[in-house]
Amino acid sequence: MPVPGRRVPIADNGAMSWLDQIKWDAAGLVPVIAQERTSGDVLMFAWMDREALQLTASSGRAVYFSRSRARLWPKGEESGHVQLVHEIRLDCDHDVVLLQVTQTGHEPGIACHTGRHRCFFQKLVGGPDHGRWEITDPVLKDPTSIYK
Amino acid sequence: MPVPGRRVPIADNGAMSWLDQIKWDAAGLVPVIAQERTSGDVLMFAWMDREALQLTASSGRAVYFSRSRARLWPKGEESGHVQLVHEIRLDCDHDVVLLQVTQTGHEPGIACHTGRHRCFFQKLVGGPDHGRWEITDPVLKDPTSIYK
Repeated sequence: MPVPGRRVPIADNGAMSWLDQIKWDAAGLVPVIAQERTSGDVLMFAWMDREALQLTASSGRAVYFSRSRARLWPKGEESGHVQLVHEIRLDCDHDVVLLQVTQTGHEPGIACHTGRHRCFFQKLVGGPDHGRWEITDPVLKDPTSIYK
Repeated sequence: MPVPGRRVPIADNGAMSWLDQIKWDAAGLVPVIAQERTSGDVLMFAWMDREALQLTASSGRAVYFSRSRARLWPKGEESGHVQLVHEIRLDCDHDVVLLQVTQTGHEPGIACHTGRHRCFFQKLVGGPDHGRWEITDPVLKDPTSIYK
């Protein structure tokens, strides 16, 4: 029986867990890239701590760790736009995670808090000397109607 | 004329540069995702400082900043497997960069130092309780023959 107030260890079976094989940074986080399975679009970039990644794997829905709010951030908790996770990948250095997801809640999917499909909606135009960031993607839904 | 030993400012024309609009982290870096244009595959994840990004934009070839070696890292400097950069994107928070690239030097492209196509060659299998990282991608070329 879990001791009250004590965090129950995950997969504490003596064997090295897949979670232990990740090189968490000094803050206990790992960067995560979310890619849309059908389109191949890179939707967003965020962070996970150990618990977030464990919850993502067990629930099949992306749970990130919000650095600004310093807490778990189940994607879509406010908007309802949850991300179904089809695949979890790890890179050669064991310190970056790549997700294959379906972005639910709207068609096409809205992953960005601005109401756009993806967070990478700004493109460098004009070359290195006269460069500027041009917005290339439309707002699909007014964010004030997405977030209460 | 540049003062010896003084870094010449980039695009110092009084206007706010596209580089100034990036939220560099405490170490002066920004995370960068490299995606293959033709396949949509996420090839790798690395970091850039201001100079690396400026050089990437001006040369059309990916130049990263190696955190372990604490210096600029022109991708392919040893292997010859340079990345041609077709597009540079920035996310909503101005703190993550996404590149669309062609990985040259081999067919299919080799982006990973292990001699594989991409760095994300490990996939979580077995579920959250009995998970393990399975290698899904073959080595395309022996890395000892790529790096001297």
